Amino acid sequence: MTAPARLSIASEYAALLVQFDTWMFDCDGVLWHGDRLIPGVIEVLALLRKNDKKVVFVTNNATKSRRSYKGKFDALGVEAHVDEIFGSAYAAAVYLSSVAQLPKDKKVYVIGQAGLEEELHEEGIAFLGGTDPADALPFDAASFTPDPNVGAVVCGLDTAISYAKYSKAFTYLSTNPDCLFVATNEDSTYPSAHGLLPGAGAISAPLRYALGRDPVCTGKPAKVMLDCVKAKVNYDPKRTIMVGDRLNTDILFGKAGGLATLLVLTGITQEAEINGPGASHIVPDYVTQSLADLRAAA
Amino acid sequence: MTAPARLSIASEYAALLVQFDTWMFDCDGVLWHGDRLIPGVIEVLALLRKNDKKVVFVTNNATKSRRSYKGKFDALGVEAHVDEIFGSAYAAAVYLSSVAQLPKDKKVYVIGQAGLEEELHEEGIAFLGGTDPADALPFDAASFTPDPNVGAVVCGLDTAISYAKYSKAFTYLSTNPDCLFVATNEDSTYPSAHGLLPGAGAISAPLRYALGRDPVCTGKPAKVMLDCVKAKVNYDPKRTIMVGDRLNTDILFGKAGGLATLLVLTGITQEAEINGPGASHIVPDYVTQSLADLRAAA
Repeated sequence: MTAPARLSIASEYAALLVQFDTWMFDCDGVLWHGDRLIPGVIEVLALLRKNDKKVVFVTNNATKSRRSYKGKFDALGVEAHVDEIFGSAYAAAVYLSSVAQLPKDKKVYVIGQAGLEEELHEEGIAFLGGTDPADALPFDAASFTPDPNVGAVVCGLDTAISYAKYSKAFTYLSTNPDCLFVATNEDSTYPSAHGLLPGAGAISAPLRYALGRDPVCTGKPAKVMLDCVKAKVNYDPKRTIMVGDRLNTDILFGKAGGLATLLVLTGITQEAEINGPGASHIVPDYVTQSLADLRAAA
Repeated sequence: MTAPARLSIASEYAALLVQFDTWMFDCDGVLWHGDRLIPGVIEVLALLRKNDKKVVFVTNNATKSRRSYKGKFDALGVEAHVDEIFGSAYAAAVYLSSVAQLPKDKKVYVIGQAGLEEELHEEGIAFLGGTDPADALPFDAASFTPDPNVGAVVCGLDTAISYAKYSKAFTYLSTNPDCLFVATNEDSTYPSAHGLLPGAGAISAPLRYALGRDPVCTGKPAKVMLDCVKAKVNYDPKRTIMVGDRLNTDILFGKAGGLATLLVLTGITQEAEINGPGASHIVPDYVTQSLADLRAAA
């Protein structure tokens, strides 16, 4: 197993800038922590744009649509455009409409929030559940009549999860073998401003467990996400680098897609996970402390 | 692999009655389906009692205390006494007080319903969470101050599950390596009057997934449950039979405890799972269609 190249001197960062035309970024842990921008990030993104690099943001955040996620960039003063943003809710909607080709008369039962609903709506997919206040009420099995037009269940992070939602989703999936089972992403946790909390992968876990089967996941590291980027952005994998803070999502995603990978240590992954006897089998090409280090390439 | 003995004639049932002094029963799928009594069950239990057999009810139901579960027996006209009933909520409480010996100044964070709280209370264990209406509200990480005296998280079936409960339980378990993680049972589903719904095992799945570790389970097939029975009921395993409808809970529980096992086909398990090429590796000693068949022993 080759060790990753640890970047530290200006010429190394400058070489990276020459080598890669398209820069894909994870957001939380790379650009910011929750609502706190990581210092130096704005300068690095400006440097890339000044050098005519393509910039793409690839996030597993499943609660926000691309449109509302852009609001987060705006609030933190980071330049970004909706067509540069790829979220796992968007990838789930594109997967259903383009890959699985869910028939137009079929609906999706949603466990998730408004952002997921917005992306489904933009792809022309009818849905139920989600933010419907009725599904926050105690579940009354006797009065539940499954909608025969439900052809898929999509599950993302949902901070208003309820037993009614789990019961309805389970009923759709267990009584109809043709019902598609899609999860926005497998992240076990997500970094909130107040520490780690259960992630979208944890939210779909009761369905996996009760059904004894796994969903199609559309977020990183899944190929579905890269297919979504490919459909919209013209890039050469050989001249593209994926920057992220998680080995099992960001770095695995980049490697699986044939991209170069740069791990930053401002997020989840600790130094010990990439060096020494306990190191992960997922090895990034490059490692640097912070994305801000790229300023040395200027 | 030996096939189970399929009982059908009166002398076989009569032999069983002679052979076993203690009869342990699963309830749902054996005695009743939801709120419908299985015909003939009352006569069989009366026959056992008339012959001075010990009768024990072992249920993974985690939402009811033994006391409230007795109300179910009463409502259906089935004779039962609180000290004959062993539920997984009770087993969880006994595990914490007697096996894990949770210090008296420690509290339990509960994901579960009133029956679980009642059993904890009866074992003298302080708790929080559970049916507290505050934990049904949206989770506000900023205003959550973990209680430093929480020494265990116990998770049972909870039809008022919320992201706040998952987040609090996850925080207690992920920030304190000494915090005990207990689940009442691993059942993936449970049979409601309106079909299968996600069970207690599904409810704890987000915590397993987010933490990457499994809880101690106290319900069938776990030995903890049999230890609870042993502490209260004097029985000879060689002269004891466990009657149930689920191979991976009831029958496994009986076999692991060195008891004889009788599978009934009035519940979850279908004929095809015990015979032929797709048969389970969990083989009961005896099989009969319904508990009511035991009437032939009279």
